[in-house]
Amino acid sequence: MTLAGFPSAQAAETAFYAAFENADYVAMMSVWSPDVDIECIHPLGERLMGPRAVGNDWRSMLSGGKRMQFRLAHIKRFQTDQLAVHILYENITIAGRQQPPVIATNVYRFNGRGWHMILHHASPATDIGKSSDMENTAKAGPVVH
Amino acid sequence: MTLAGFPSAQAAETAFYAAFENADYVAMMSVWSPDVDIECIHPLGERLMGPRAVGNDWRSMLSGGKRMQFRLAHIKRFQTDQLAVHILYENITIAGRQQPPVIATNVYRFNGRGWHMILHHASPATDIGKSSDMENTAKAGPVVH
Repeated sequence: MTLAGFPSAQAAETAFYAAFENADYVAMMSVWSPDVDIECIHPLGERLMGPRAVGNDWRSMLSGGKRMQFRLAHIKRFQTDQLAVHILYENITIAGRQQPPVIATNVYRFNGRGWHMILHHASPATDIGKSSDMENTAKAGPVVH
Repeated sequence: MTLAGFPSAQAAETAFYAAFENADYVAMMSVWSPDVDIECIHPLGERLMGPRAVGNDWRSMLSGGKRMQFRLAHIKRFQTDQLAVHILYENITIAGRQQPPVIATNVYRFNGRGWHMILHHASPATDIGKSSDMENTAKAGPVVH
């Protein structure tokens, strides 16, 4: 994939998780926008701002030798001609062991030629889908905000 | 503020934090889009999907009697005609006590008449600005993702 970008936000997202699973740093960085100040936040991690910080982080993370597998669930998409926002659960398996679920907000941008990721904001999920309208459950418990 | 919405994403954001500080449930819900399936994630909280789940949560949260003050920092904005994405730090004070910082991704949508919030994704921040390109620091430490 060249700097021209991906044909859709969804194609960029597919490439993002493929690069993550394959621990492919070059493929991973091709997903990210070369045009704007990208940002990346891993669960309980720092707010990484700008291509150098984000790139250094992925280089370190993808060289760690942990092979991860992702199963995505409940993907919600807001899309316009130039920006797309995807919210989803990442169900991650490392070496066959299921990890606590993660909530991710992924934002993609069209630069006139193609789509790239500009934000990955991931955080720990306490409970999958418990408070969706479909299940009509009320929120209870402590509020951390 | 009516259902017509706010004149800008920034105006909606200002109203969001004002409603939060004033513990004003009606004002808070007027910030949120009546048009789409909104989502809200508080730090280490559930993924709240849909107006009922989000509304129930804010009703509970804003009736808790905790008065919070917000100081926002390092606001990064991506904006098009129909969607706006703001990434920022929330520095929160409760009853004069500084809380651990929070990273928030706020997404706003223009519905043809005005702007509303459609997503608030907040998570704990471990370190403010340590890995920005400006400071040219490399990432170190454990990776949780």
